[in-house]
Amino acid sequence: MNQKLDVIDHVAVSVTNIAESLDWYGSQFQCHVLYQDETWALIEFANIKLALVVAAQHPPHIGFFTPKASEFGDLKAHRDGTKSVYIKDPSGNSIELLATE
Amino acid sequence: MNQKLDVIDHVAVSVTNIAESLDWYGSQFQCHVLYQDETWALIEFANIKLALVVAAQHPPHIGFFTPKASEFGDLKAHRDGTKSVYIKDPSGNSIELLATE
Repeated sequence: MNQKLDVIDHVAVSVTNIAESLDWYGSQFQCHVLYQDETWALIEFANIKLALVVAAQHPPHIGFFTPKASEFGDLKAHRDGTKSVYIKDPSGNSIELLATE
Repeated sequence: MNQKLDVIDHVAVSVTNIAESLDWYGSQFQCHVLYQDETWALIEFANIKLALVVAAQHPPHIGFFTPKASEFGDLKAHRDGTKSVYIKDPSGNSIELLATE
């Protein structure tokens, strides 16, 4: 298998309280908080980032790096320098496609 | 930061139809199907595995490797050689703790 596999950048899961959830994940796991406010947080693990989101303000989703991102719509630029577009999988799960270039 | 971060082994997301979802993920992304039946599938990406699950038979969850897994209950051995226990985070998300030993 010489195929180069795509990278999943992050997974965003819905939580009820960001601060409480950060305390819990931080106490259970060796991880590193990259960002937090009242509506979402970003935690670094060895191989991927975990986002904790208040679903009313940020949708739970999975973020994939792919060279095909721009084929799915206009890419939106984010403050961290990434560009992405959101789509749905056939089951209605939110999928973020992040440009690789 | 000398801390050694924990690894997230896999993320399992709920889908309505395994075969249809595999077709979709396989056409959108460079990935490799490791396993599939009618109730779940496992797809390899560069840094993590993505499980597609029919929620009525397999709960959506996130699987973390941690040396503390056995502190949370009796570990169950799986056919792939891993041992794990399921817990809930404070928001009710299912979390699988996989032993690292």
